[in-house]
Amino acid sequence: MDLWNVDKIEYVGRSQGPSESLGFHYYDPEKVVAGKKMKDWLRFAVAWWHTFNQELVDPFGTGTAQRPYYKYTDPMDQALAKVDYAFELFTKLGVNYFCFHDRDLAPEGDTLRQTNANLDKVVDKIEENMKSTGVKLLWNTSSLFTNPRFVDGASTSPFADIFAYSAAQLKHSLEIGKRLGAENYVFWGGREGYENLWNTQMKREQEHMAAFFHMCHDYAQEIGFDAQFLIEPKAKEPTMHQYDFDASTTIAFLKTYDLDDVFKLNLEGNHANLAMHTYQHEIRVARENGFLGSLDANQGDKLIGWDMDEFPTDLYETVAVMWEVLAAGSIGPHGGLNFDAKPRRSSFSPEDLFRTHVAGMDAYAAGLLVADRMHEDKFIENLQADRYSSFDSGIGKRVEDGAASLASLEEYALDKPQADLIAATRSDHLESVKATINNYIVDTLASVK
Amino acid sequence: MDLWNVDKIEYVGRSQGPSESLGFHYYDPEKVVAGKKMKDWLRFAVAWWHTFNQELVDPFGTGTAQRPYYKYTDPMDQALAKVDYAFELFTKLGVNYFCFHDRDLAPEGDTLRQTNANLDKVVDKIEENMKSTGVKLLWNTSSLFTNPRFVDGASTSPFADIFAYSAAQLKHSLEIGKRLGAENYVFWGGREGYENLWNTQMKREQEHMAAFFHMCHDYAQEIGFDAQFLIEPKAKEPTMHQYDFDASTTIAFLKTYDLDDVFKLNLEGNHANLAMHTYQHEIRVARENGFLGSLDANQGDKLIGWDMDEFPTDLYETVAVMWEVLAAGSIGPHGGLNFDAKPRRSSFSPEDLFRTHVAGMDAYAAGLLVADRMHEDKFIENLQADRYSSFDSGIGKRVEDGAASLASLEEYALDKPQADLIAATRSDHLESVKATINNYIVDTLASVK
Amino acid sequence: MDLWNVDKIEYVGRSQGPSESLGFHYYDPEKVVAGKKMKDWLRFAVAWWHTFNQELVDPFGTGTAQRPYYKYTDPMDQALAKVDYAFELFTKLGVNYFCFHDRDLAPEGDTLRQTNANLDKVVDKIEENMKSTGVKLLWNTSSLFTNPRFVDGASTSPFADIFAYSAAQLKHSLEIGKRLGAENYVFWGGREGYENLWNTQMKREQEHMAAFFHMCHDYAQEIGFDAQFLIEPKAKEPTMHQYDFDASTTIAFLKTYDLDDVFKLNLEGNHANLAMHTYQHEIRVARENGFLGSLDANQGDKLIGWDMDEFPTDLYETVAVMWEVLAAGSIGPHGGLNFDAKPRRSSFSPEDLFRTHVAGMDAYAAGLLVADRMHEDKFIENLQADRYSSFDSGIGKRVEDGAASLASLEEYALDKPQADLIAATRSDHLESVKATINNYIVDTLASVK
Amino acid sequence: MDLWNVDKIEYVGRSQGPSESLGFHYYDPEKVVAGKKMKDWLRFAVAWWHTFNQELVDPFGTGTAQRPYYKYTDPMDQALAKVDYAFELFTKLGVNYFCFHDRDLAPEGDTLRQTNANLDKVVDKIEENMKSTGVKLLWNTSSLFTNPRFVDGASTSPFADIFAYSAAQLKHSLEIGKRLGAENYVFWGGREGYENLWNTQMKREQEHMAAFFHMCHDYAQEIGFDAQFLIEPKAKEPTMHQYDFDASTTIAFLKTYDLDDVFKLNLEGNHANLAMHTYQHEIRVARENGFLGSLDANQGDKLIGWDMDEFPTDLYETVAVMWEVLAAGSIGPHGGLNFDAKPRRSSFSPEDLFRTHVAGMDAYAAGLLVADRMHEDKFIENLQADRYSSFDSGIGKRVEDGAASLASLEEYALDKPQADLIAATRSDHLESVKATINNYIVDTLASVK
Repeated sequence: MDLWNVDKIEYVGRSQGPSESLGFHYYDPEKVVAGKKMKDWLRFAVAWWHTFNQELVDPFGTGTAQRPYYKYTDPMDQALAKVDYAFELFTKLGVNYFCFHDRDLAPEGDTLRQTNANLDKVVDKIEENMKSTGVKLLWNTSSLFTNPRFVDGASTSPFADIFAYSAAQLKHSLEIGKRLGAENYVFWGGREGYENLWNTQMKREQEHMAAFFHMCHDYAQEIGFDAQFLIEPKAKEPTMHQYDFDASTTIAFLKTYDLDDVFKLNLEGNHANLAMHTYQHEIRVARENGFLGSLDANQGDKLIGWDMDEFPTDLYETVAVMWEVLAAGSIGPHGGLNFDAKPRRSSFSPEDLFRTHVAGMDAYAAGLLVADRMHEDKFIENLQADRYSSFDSGIGKRVEDGAASLASLEEYALDKPQADLIAATRSDHLESVKATINNYIVDTLASVK
Repeated sequence: MDLWNVDKIEYVGRSQGPSESLGFHYYDPEKVVAGKKMKDWLRFAVAWWHTFNQELVDPFGTGTAQRPYYKYTDPMDQALAKVDYAFELFTKLGVNYFCFHDRDLAPEGDTLRQTNANLDKVVDKIEENMKSTGVKLLWNTSSLFTNPRFVDGASTSPFADIFAYSAAQLKHSLEIGKRLGAENYVFWGGREGYENLWNTQMKREQEHMAAFFHMCHDYAQEIGFDAQFLIEPKAKEPTMHQYDFDASTTIAFLKTYDLDDVFKLNLEGNHANLAMHTYQHEIRVARENGFLGSLDANQGDKLIGWDMDEFPTDLYETVAVMWEVLAAGSIGPHGGLNFDAKPRRSSFSPEDLFRTHVAGMDAYAAGLLVADRMHEDKFIENLQADRYSSFDSGIGKRVEDGAASLASLEEYALDKPQADLIAATRSDHLESVKATINNYIVDTLASVK
Repeated sequence: MDLWNVDKIEYVGRSQGPSESLGFHYYDPEKVVAGKKMKDWLRFAVAWWHTFNQELVDPFGTGTAQRPYYKYTDPMDQALAKVDYAFELFTKLGVNYFCFHDRDLAPEGDTLRQTNANLDKVVDKIEENMKSTGVKLLWNTSSLFTNPRFVDGASTSPFADIFAYSAAQLKHSLEIGKRLGAENYVFWGGREGYENLWNTQMKREQEHMAAFFHMCHDYAQEIGFDAQFLIEPKAKEPTMHQYDFDASTTIAFLKTYDLDDVFKLNLEGNHANLAMHTYQHEIRVARENGFLGSLDANQGDKLIGWDMDEFPTDLYETVAVMWEVLAAGSIGPHGGLNFDAKPRRSSFSPEDLFRTHVAGMDAYAAGLLVADRMHEDKFIENLQADRYSSFDSGIGKRVEDGAASLASLEEYALDKPQADLIAATRSDHLESVKATINNYIVDTLASVK
Repeated sequence: MDLWNVDKIEYVGRSQGPSESLGFHYYDPEKVVAGKKMKDWLRFAVAWWHTFNQELVDPFGTGTAQRPYYKYTDPMDQALAKVDYAFELFTKLGVNYFCFHDRDLAPEGDTLRQTNANLDKVVDKIEENMKSTGVKLLWNTSSLFTNPRFVDGASTSPFADIFAYSAAQLKHSLEIGKRLGAENYVFWGGREGYENLWNTQMKREQEHMAAFFHMCHDYAQEIGFDAQFLIEPKAKEPTMHQYDFDASTTIAFLKTYDLDDVFKLNLEGNHANLAMHTYQHEIRVARENGFLGSLDANQGDKLIGWDMDEFPTDLYETVAVMWEVLAAGSIGPHGGLNFDAKPRRSSFSPEDLFRTHVAGMDAYAAGLLVADRMHEDKFIENLQADRYSSFDSGIGKRVEDGAASLASLEEYALDKPQADLIAATRSDHLESVKATINNYIVDTLASVK
């Protein structure tokens, strides 16, 4: 079968100059890095919505995408055909996971019962393809934001019927996750926020959202669906303010509503930027607080104020992300790198679906290689250990041991002259650290054959 | 005594056209609004640092401020003289509270012991003035960010001696708070964050910060200092990322480190903007989560990326803030409106210190009047009650009562046609709501005599 | 005829509290202000695209709009029906102008010839309605951005056939403008910019754009279409960078390509914000450089990084805009206030199309009233005259007269002591200016009966 | 002499892992690249203000910098001592140029005459050092923003005495430029803008600014000072809006006031970001319009809203900058790369002044090497030529030749079906372009020995 008219993408090694042919320069799936195969560190996943459904529209233009299955004009015909295209793309890219929203797969009917029937037909076909190819479901999720009924939210809608509908829709989505062996289940609350505070009962809405999550968890337990539940923070867009603003805000919510044992986080680079954070920041917050669940592999543009969902190519960001992942031991208990990314609108040919994933996979593979070299050298670890060493003994250790008080510390510090205090601080030579990271990028990738 | 060459500012009623003379157009301190005097709702405070110490420098220019006490060139002489100027200004403005950092009051010596001695002399004089004038201390705080020893933080410094020094400094600051009867005690962690994640052990730093807060609380209890502890969130500046990024982030921290019973929040309009929030948002988050402590009265400029600390004049913002305060019943248990605000650099005359406070006090008094009228009419309350009414009975009530599950809601929703679901949503006529708020502003203030 | 089930909107005078019924509180069209009727100062126009075509989609959701003409499913039937709805809405709102893109009116055919034929049918019907109602065309324009053929621009497309097509499309659009008596003709270059500089020949693209504008001007002269040509600046969105970034950038372009006698500017509040400017700034730049052409009446949200196109309700902004307009004597030679604004997605009922326009018209009418009072008092004029008075005589006058040189000024200044120089500067009491503007808003609007 | 206790920095070749010792990994000054020595392409300059005067203060903290010449407490003693430190640093870094503001060099006296006398003493010593070391002056400039007399601007001050003083100050600055053989003369209008539009006569201020520039140009001609005049755009900070907002805005100003033959632009990466542009964008605009003068080598952080002035380390940015420079043939007629950059506040040791420059010089040297390889391969040139090739013949050529009109293009396009138009557009495979740039960075730098 060759639906895409593209050959399987192979590892070809480090590139010399521009090349028209497609191949991985850094992603060598079976290569062992830090004790695991690259493919097991990275666990790449294709996002159904962007890769197969995205028509490359924007607020001022209709779609530019050219896709071979647009020849199917009946929605169900097209939905079923896409399954073939999807699994061939997974296989040719060498990607072992995929992700989807319920509504990505099949059109809605007039009632949820009809919608579920449409969906189940496509899921049947997906299940067959998963068996025959070995490709697995990293996570599934439910679109509680596209249809106009969700105009003011789903679990936080002011309208009880919409809450009820959302719960019903979610039920079937969990059942599909169970059936397909999803390793995680994601909640992105695109409409769970507000347009304007004056007409919003924020606390009441958040209580509804918490009740919804508890019901979902109860039902998953009831049916024996043990996927890791994940919340995906985003600051804004489409709403003016989304309740899951960033990692910290979501953690505050989970702790407030006794959901912190049930959920971890699915983080995304572009979403981090919309909250004015770096991606590394969001991952660090999640990792150190025990909430790192999974990652969306994309990038934004910090001079742009909306969600770009670009395929990731910035090596500074992929190095930072993979360094945090190596420090964590994995991308969450069942996490992976899901390409929540779309080609640029000007990159509209079918072939670009392969080009974009190759660019992104290579960028993350390169990030893994560089971060691994940094870990091997304990470059960052040593730098940090040295910087904080005054807490490893003496007064610092007493502080960390809980053996100090304001009074005991006053006794220690009361007569220290300013010169001694200044001498206790040390320059961090930060610009040299950045230059050394440049060196790591070049040296590591130069050594790839 | 007439150090400032300015008359006491009186209430003169609504203005007609531009006027050179100073008077309050809306702030009528003894006027009863919603069951309390205006002065008791607003509890204005002058900020020592901005009003008396701010030289109106910026990163590209030295100070433009013209202040009568610059004639005192010896630092201690000037520090003591400022006390007279300060209390005359409080009295002439009719402001009943003030706030300060320890380092606002007196110059540092070479050791903390010497610094404390300098400080105590000024505090002696302040104490006398408080007694003679009846002006009270809304809160005090400690500058753990100005001196170069705090280059990498205070309680989160990587250098144990700096942690120790910070603790010692804080001890005396708490003692002063106790002595002067501070109603609150504020922590603003201007350096408690990071410049760069690569050389930062974020979790370790946050554990140190939590240990520090626990020590402070322990000591306050030990000396019987029962002021409300407050954390003041700010997203960034001076650091690239400050740990107390916004209200939600701070709540997550407090819950993680078992400090949520000890602290509330001191919020600020300009800081809200730096985190990409409205001021109303931050107050709403704090209020509904039980963390509303006190407010800094200033405003930013949303097209500017740094802290402006402008005196507040935007009536849309003051109406929103005071509406939240009326909903809460007060600005926190002991809160007030502290003018964490400085004149513009081009507004540099001594008289401008009065003009700016009058502008800010009037803007908040106007906000109170408008918000009160809105509350009296139950304008917002009715609008919200109506919008969420589907949760007051039927399926909505069952959700709120915890009597629903995914299965029961599926049964309810499975066969509802799309048209019924759309009919369950209602337009919020948001533009009319905004126009009505314009009407409230004009009508309420037009009725002031 | 009552297609909308809404009564004609009447002037009812200043409001007391919230009200369900619709009426103008400030917009009294025949009232004379500063020598002209309100309707002649404001020249409101309805934007066809937002008001009749906008389905209230966003990047994460399908349309929520409920419109009576959705019952027509054939595109031409609906297009023709909309003309009736449009003119009834204009009449009931008392709006005397409208604006449209060619593609707003009728669906495209497979060729431009077919597309033009569709369009002409709708234009026929519009022409009849204009005659019968007296409603006029403020401006028309051409959509050179929606169709995927414009993926990389129209006059700046790298593909010559697309340039040619764009020129051909524009030709017919100018002919329609001529036929309907458009007072202005607008160019918004939504795709004239770049996604990425690496693959962009910026200068070559700008030369193409200039050639295109010259051709358009030539053709307009050829057919005797004497509408004022206008460029509408926007910084970004949909492109990463749009060539007409802001007023100044567009002026630089026009001067570089000898187009500054042909074009003026159509400015927009939300676009100003996307370039990090206030709306007042953009209008001031255009006004003082002789490029003020017309205005789009909308507002953005400065905490949001994309184009909101909210209906204007912020009185601070409408006062500033109308003050500049009063200073200019009019909104450009043939300009008006076009509501390039859409209801919020949650404000989706047919009635909201009236509510939103009423809110916007009242906000601008209020702005006019307040600005007029400020002009009558010469509040700003006096304040500025006083501030710059040192240039009215002496050394300042010699500078303005061109009679000074570095040498003569050195002689003047070389021995002036610093104290004299500081004394030459004066505080601008900026906070009092802002408070006075608050007073003007309240006082002026309070006096409305 | 070894004032800094640092050895001369040598080229050591590509690095392996972190290293404590200082050496250039990419900057090999005599190496020939694209027909010129690296040092002649790059023409690095040290900025006196940041490197010698910057105390590493920020708005919330006093200086952390540790500098050996702080032992000199008399201002003139320190000023003269710094000259020795400066020239030793230039020599040890192997930097051949420097830049300064008049006020960087010596303290002000009470009158300009006294100030000039102080300045001349330091200039005498600088002149001697220039002769003995061969280090040259890339440009000098005048600080018309630091002193409080410039509170509301210099040439745009509303106060005529301040205009006069500014002109007098500038006169002597030009004389010093002439004396020291400055290759360029820079104007940065840090205060030439506004805080608030209400009290600002913008056009009048810009006319004053233009008159000022004409006087400066006249005087330079009078004394035979033929340095290239440069304006340095910046969007905001310290003012709310600076008149020289960005490259395009400045070009508009220069054309309006007939100064476009006299001035070119000095651009800066961080300033580009504050105007929401990339650095490459600003350079492209200047280059293609004939205004590229010189470059400030620094970088910002796009998540931060103020001027960081970080030393440049981002290779994506240095590659883009140097690609534009190679395309231009040089950095302007007499341009160079001036390090308008300061160490981070936490990077405060004397040694960091060397570390930071080495990091920045290497980043730009690496950028030159990568851009040169891209040019050698004609990677970008071919990609662009191919993309725009439809304008090289046929209808496209007729457009470029000025031989087309709307009518002739209508004839060409009127009956083209949509499919043909879509076929005329081509995907730009943008993600592959980005991946190829990654490959160029790695491959080029890997080949360095």
